[in-house]
Amino acid sequence: MRITVLENLMAANQNTAAENRRTLADNNIYAVNIMGSPGCGKTTLLEKTLELLAGKLRAAVIEGDVSTTLDAERLARFGIQVVQINTEPFGGSCHLNARMIAGSLSTLDFKDLDLLFIENVGNLICPAEFDLGEHEKVIVASVAEGEEKPLKYPLMFRRADLVIINKMDLCDRLQTDMRILISNIRKVNPSVQIIELSALTGEGCSLWIDRLQGNFSAFQEPEGR
Amino acid sequence: MRITVLENLMAANQNTAAENRRTLADNNIYAVNIMGSPGCGKTTLLEKTLELLAGKLRAAVIEGDVSTTLDAERLARFGIQVVQINTEPFGGSCHLNARMIAGSLSTLDFKDLDLLFIENVGNLICPAEFDLGEHEKVIVASVAEGEEKPLKYPLMFRRADLVIINKMDLCDRLQTDMRILISNIRKVNPSVQIIELSALTGEGCSLWIDRLQGNFSAFQEPEGR
Repeated sequence: MRITVLENLMAANQNTAAENRRTLADNNIYAVNIMGSPGCGKTTLLEKTLELLAGKLRAAVIEGDVSTTLDAERLARFGIQVVQINTEPFGGSCHLNARMIAGSLSTLDFKDLDLLFIENVGNLICPAEFDLGEHEKVIVASVAEGEEKPLKYPLMFRRADLVIINKMDLCDRLQTDMRILISNIRKVNPSVQIIELSALTGEGCSLWIDRLQGNFSAFQEPEGR
Repeated sequence: MRITVLENLMAANQNTAAENRRTLADNNIYAVNIMGSPGCGKTTLLEKTLELLAGKLRAAVIEGDVSTTLDAERLARFGIQVVQINTEPFGGSCHLNARMIAGSLSTLDFKDLDLLFIENVGNLICPAEFDLGEHEKVIVASVAEGEEKPLKYPLMFRRADLVIINKMDLCDRLQTDMRILISNIRKVNPSVQIIELSALTGEGCSLWIDRLQGNFSAFQEPEGR
């Protein structure tokens, strides 16, 4: 019984995710699902990203948190559309699902929008299982988390299109062995892209911005270019 | 349907947790459930704890991870009993449940054992919902995670008996505002105990060790003292 129910839930999520992906494509909006542990720097990365994208691409953000609107408030000061999803009324859900995104999409004004960032609930496990209708999955991993996390939380890293290694400014202090960290990421996902940066100092962020612009261009319909 | 199934699951977990608690009490073993984000320093704290407890209290560890035996290997070198639970065969479960603990208890030799540490899966959300039969819940929160985490992940902090603020050696470098962090913990759980320490340097750890010894003494049956 339990398995049937869960399978039905996952199938329903998949259908809704496919609808979300169609809606986004119809409106020429490229969606990025950003996942990672609590405190890995997802919101700080979005702040730096919005700053660096200004005048280049127009973005909106869907913010997922169990509770509070703290992150949405941090991002709203960039004058963009921000939708906050709190999962506490949904049993404190530890991940976003496609239905929550569908609800958020219905409140967004799609005009003049190129990118949609979805900041998932801080969690290195459950969000990996739920397709939201995004076009790519980005994992933010902080050097403060240690080198062995890709091996211990393999699904998240296996599903990622890009791993951003954040807080590179702390690397010296923490004596992080980047060779081991990157080798562990590659063991779980040999073909994943990796960018090292510090969202705080901005070091390495141009690679991420260039990649976003490139992916958005490649995603656009030929007539839209 | 879905709710019924989940309620049944939670009731079954509660029953098994109660049995675990009885088994532990019958054998005069005090159990501590240690929870926190990936990379907050749970295993490093256990390493320091086992080092400092040597000759005082005899401990065993149940290690919960989605995948790998890396943490169990780090702890086995202390010559103690370590049971590794990998949740990957259970659908990559994001938390330990009481049944997993019951299975582990059946493999432990209870003789000459005072303390049982259960290191939960690294996750600041789901493990809070599952009673394992432990005698207390300890949250490890790293200063690298930022000051607002107690507000964003309230259930975990609300259920805690003790919050250990770890990586205090990074406080200066990260410019963590401890006043705000502690005030946020108190907003969610006004009566929770808080210990600031660095599991890496050992700073502040004696408070934690003294507290463990005190709790163990208070827990013992009068005839056992």
